[in-house]
Amino acid sequence: MTRFSFNQATAKYWPMEDLVAGCVDAGVTGVGLWREEAAAYGVEKTASLIHNAGLAVTSLCRGGFFNQTGWLDENRRAIDEAATLGAPTLVLVSGGLPDGSRDLDAARKNVRDAIGALVPHALDAGVQLAIEPLHPMFCSDRCVVASLGQALDLASPYPPQAVGVVVDTYHLWWDDQVWTQIDRAGREGRIACFQAADWITPLPEGVLLGRGLPGEGCVQLRRFREAVDATGYTGPVEVEVFHAGLWSRPGREVLEASIAGYLEHVAER
Amino acid sequence: MTRFSFNQATAKYWPMEDLVAGCVDAGVTGVGLWREEAAAYGVEKTASLIHNAGLAVTSLCRGGFFNQTGWLDENRRAIDEAATLGAPTLVLVSGGLPDGSRDLDAARKNVRDAIGALVPHALDAGVQLAIEPLHPMFCSDRCVVASLGQALDLASPYPPQAVGVVVDTYHLWWDDQVWTQIDRAGREGRIACFQAADWITPLPEGVLLGRGLPGEGCVQLRRFREAVDATGYTGPVEVEVFHAGLWSRPGREVLEASIAGYLEHVAER
Repeated sequence: MTRFSFNQATAKYWPMEDLVAGCVDAGVTGVGLWREEAAAYGVEKTASLIHNAGLAVTSLCRGGFFNQTGWLDENRRAIDEAATLGAPTLVLVSGGLPDGSRDLDAARKNVRDAIGALVPHALDAGVQLAIEPLHPMFCSDRCVVASLGQALDLASPYPPQAVGVVVDTYHLWWDDQVWTQIDRAGREGRIACFQAADWITPLPEGVLLGRGLPGEGCVQLRRFREAVDATGYTGPVEVEVFHAGLWSRPGREVLEASIAGYLEHVAER
Repeated sequence: MTRFSFNQATAKYWPMEDLVAGCVDAGVTGVGLWREEAAAYGVEKTASLIHNAGLAVTSLCRGGFFNQTGWLDENRRAIDEAATLGAPTLVLVSGGLPDGSRDLDAARKNVRDAIGALVPHALDAGVQLAIEPLHPMFCSDRCVVASLGQALDLASPYPPQAVGVVVDTYHLWWDDQVWTQIDRAGREGRIACFQAADWITPLPEGVLLGRGLPGEGCVQLRRFREAVDATGYTGPVEVEVFHAGLWSRPGREVLEASIAGYLEHVAER
């Protein structure tokens, strides 16, 4: 259980104090946080609460959305919050196409340039930016970075301590190049975070809230964990699942189910 | 208009005779057919109707679903029907994972082997099998072939006159490797069919019926048509859109809208 981390989005409506208490009671040592939830509780107060409980923050979601007005200041604030929270990694969801645009190449170039503009601040703050490739079904409206290979290409101009990538099974499982690209990500020292969620169908309207807990779907989750480990990755394994049905269940029950899924389908046996 | 082809799935409930009359009246010279619709009207009868009207059948959808019992006989029948209809190409939607399986590699190997088993019959019948990579959001339940590069890899053991690929903008637009792979597909002589549909959001529940007519979404459709043409492709440009709202409109209106979208967003200017 030392590598398991509970991403709070999995139990979105679980109050921060209950989340922390629940993790401590369950023997969980790491949590992945979201900016909105940390801000609602207070960033400094969240940092104290979590560290006083002996938990580590394994990542902060999310920076990115480089197609929106004010992205530079917003992302600098996100980096500062990650530093305050002690999160080693700020996850970047890069944003989709600007309204009315079809120019995917330009949007992707914009991501590369925007990350470059953030690198000095990230290095100063000691926070690694982590480009997250999202499933291609999100390409137009959430993230123009749609494969691990592409994320690594975008990261390539920058030092790995400044820019890494997120390996999230939900987004990458379909890609026949993913094993090669995980090897490459490890070789290049860029695996900033590993996240596990399962793929289930049918997808709901809007497709955002259709993930499954580990074991509920068809992803070879253990193979993914073994592949990142084979590159030398020893970091956290975050369970991060967005699902409307899951969000309606009590936080402790969701945490228990996440741990059970992790142990059965992801963890070393 | 000589290259425009109307895929009948775009006006799913338009009766065959009305479809043919509508195409003739609109000056359309090619149609893409579906097996279910041809069977309902009668395959031989469909062939006579269409050829007497002076139309060409540009493709038949679909073979594939190699994970289902009886796939071999079913696909042989599909090849025979394509030959009867005068369709040069049988589009293959390869099927998803078998029920309960997580073994994506095995499913993909099975696709390669299944196609190999069909090649002699396809060559005898003079029908080119066309592997269609579907958008990765269909990977688990409809098609384990999720990128053009992967489709070309699967095709590679077989001669191009037996096995080609479909380039469908809806499925491929997100892929940063797609331009390279279109070049490759052309070089290898494997572009069997080019289909155009646009990407729109939000996706509906189940995601199957969420396509847009050319121009309604964010895909660089003309760039795709120019890319396939640049490889020497001179074949049909099929408009193939699945959308529940579109299906509720009169067939003639859907055809008109398809032609207008094609001329404005896909065709040479």
